[in-house]
Amino acid sequence: MSEQAIKPYKKHFDYSYTLGAFPTYEMLLSKPEKVRKVIIHSTYTDQEKLMKLCAHRKIPYEINDKLLNKISDKENCFVAGVFDKYSETLRSDKAHIVLVNPSNMGNLGTIIRTAVGFGIYDLAIILPAADIFNPKTVRSSMGALFKMNFMLFDSFDDYRQQYQEHEIFTFMLDGDKSLTIQDCPKANLYSLVFGNEATGLDDSFKGVGTSIFIPQSADVDSLNLTIAVGIAAYVFTSKSKI
Amino acid sequence: MSEQAIKPYKKHFDYSYTLGAFPTYEMLLSKPEKVRKVIIHSTYTDQEKLMKLCAHRKIPYEINDKLLNKISDKENCFVAGVFDKYSETLRSDKAHIVLVNPSNMGNLGTIIRTAVGFGIYDLAIILPAADIFNPKTVRSSMGALFKMNFMLFDSFDDYRQQYQEHEIFTFMLDGDKSLTIQDCPKANLYSLVFGNEATGLDDSFKGVGTSIFIPQSADVDSLNLTIAVGIAAYVFTSKSKI
Repeated sequence: MSEQAIKPYKKHFDYSYTLGAFPTYEMLLSKPEKVRKVIIHSTYTDQEKLMKLCAHRKIPYEINDKLLNKISDKENCFVAGVFDKYSETLRSDKAHIVLVNPSNMGNLGTIIRTAVGFGIYDLAIILPAADIFNPKTVRSSMGALFKMNFMLFDSFDDYRQQYQEHEIFTFMLDGDKSLTIQDCPKANLYSLVFGNEATGLDDSFKGVGTSIFIPQSADVDSLNLTIAVGIAAYVFTSKSKI
Repeated sequence: MSEQAIKPYKKHFDYSYTLGAFPTYEMLLSKPEKVRKVIIHSTYTDQEKLMKLCAHRKIPYEINDKLLNKISDKENCFVAGVFDKYSETLRSDKAHIVLVNPSNMGNLGTIIRTAVGFGIYDLAIILPAADIFNPKTVRSSMGALFKMNFMLFDSFDDYRQQYQEHEIFTFMLDGDKSLTIQDCPKANLYSLVFGNEATGLDDSFKGVGTSIFIPQSADVDSLNLTIAVGIAAYVFTSKSKI
């Protein structure tokens, strides 16, 4: 693609960016076939290693300070990658995380990093939702996005129709079962379902599977969404290792 | 204090702000003696209830759109509180969280909200650190700051000298003990110690107490600091309830 064609990110583009060396390396290692080009700042200290990796994977690269400034909003961005957006299918025999209408890109990225950290590699997102390809999401995932299988659905019913075997656990402030380390539900194949940051899951989710509550003091309104997902993923993946 | 005296927040001020109705209410309920004044937007829909609470606690309030715009960076801020900064002492017979050089205000606020959510109400911060009184920290704590006892220390040694009875658990990527729900260390009185977002705890912490590692896949560099604190707080407070 020509330089003129590369613009600051917009949601409707069929490509996006990794901003920063760390997520760009993660992408080059995990999804090299999606990378269009790598852009390197003339003052980047580790150029040789990066160019070698690009050459090895037959990925074009260029040193172009002007272009880097144009596409990144931060001043200290020394490396960027341009990649094709892509779609994937979730694996039907692995645990899933399901996020219903997540609205914050930073949270979405952190959740992806956390899920991959605990060994859950399949993520369903129910639309509308924060843009998973936005460079901010990619950055806050620390590149873990490229290790995650993710799939977007128009509704939870669409997800459920396609994946019918998973036992469903919905995380709700008024959930029926409390999530304790002594008494965590055990399941071989499960989906952990979380609502939007501000509103949680609405009552239509009450009858879907087992509703779960993470015990918390009366001194907070609720836990942060990323924390709730982190604790659920930690406890469920620990249990399934027993 | 006069209106002229109220300026956009700076770290060296002896006062700070709550921005938004939620954290302002939390402050009015938990730390009314620290509140100088409440400022309300003329279009705020729930004025009467807020004014009644202020009157009941003998706290001055005023409707002042201009002043609200001046001190808040967001456009949709309908309520703010001006409060005196304060210092506190940690309780020597309760669990502590110790943050060594936390650098991000959003993380610090989320950690406070999470700790309070799991019933840990005493927080030591080792300087230098993100400003705990910055309105951004207050906002991301969702007002839980006002329910937390916190204390700043110049060094970890200073903290340790003052609180010698706590069993110390340091969270490190190369920690000796892995934190599993089947085999979590048990302690009646403990401090959970975490390093900076980028660098973690340095080797000088190796000999201090028991070092702990939260098991994670090789596919991430590390867990986000807020997630690590959340999981540690969840597991340790669950264990101490047995």
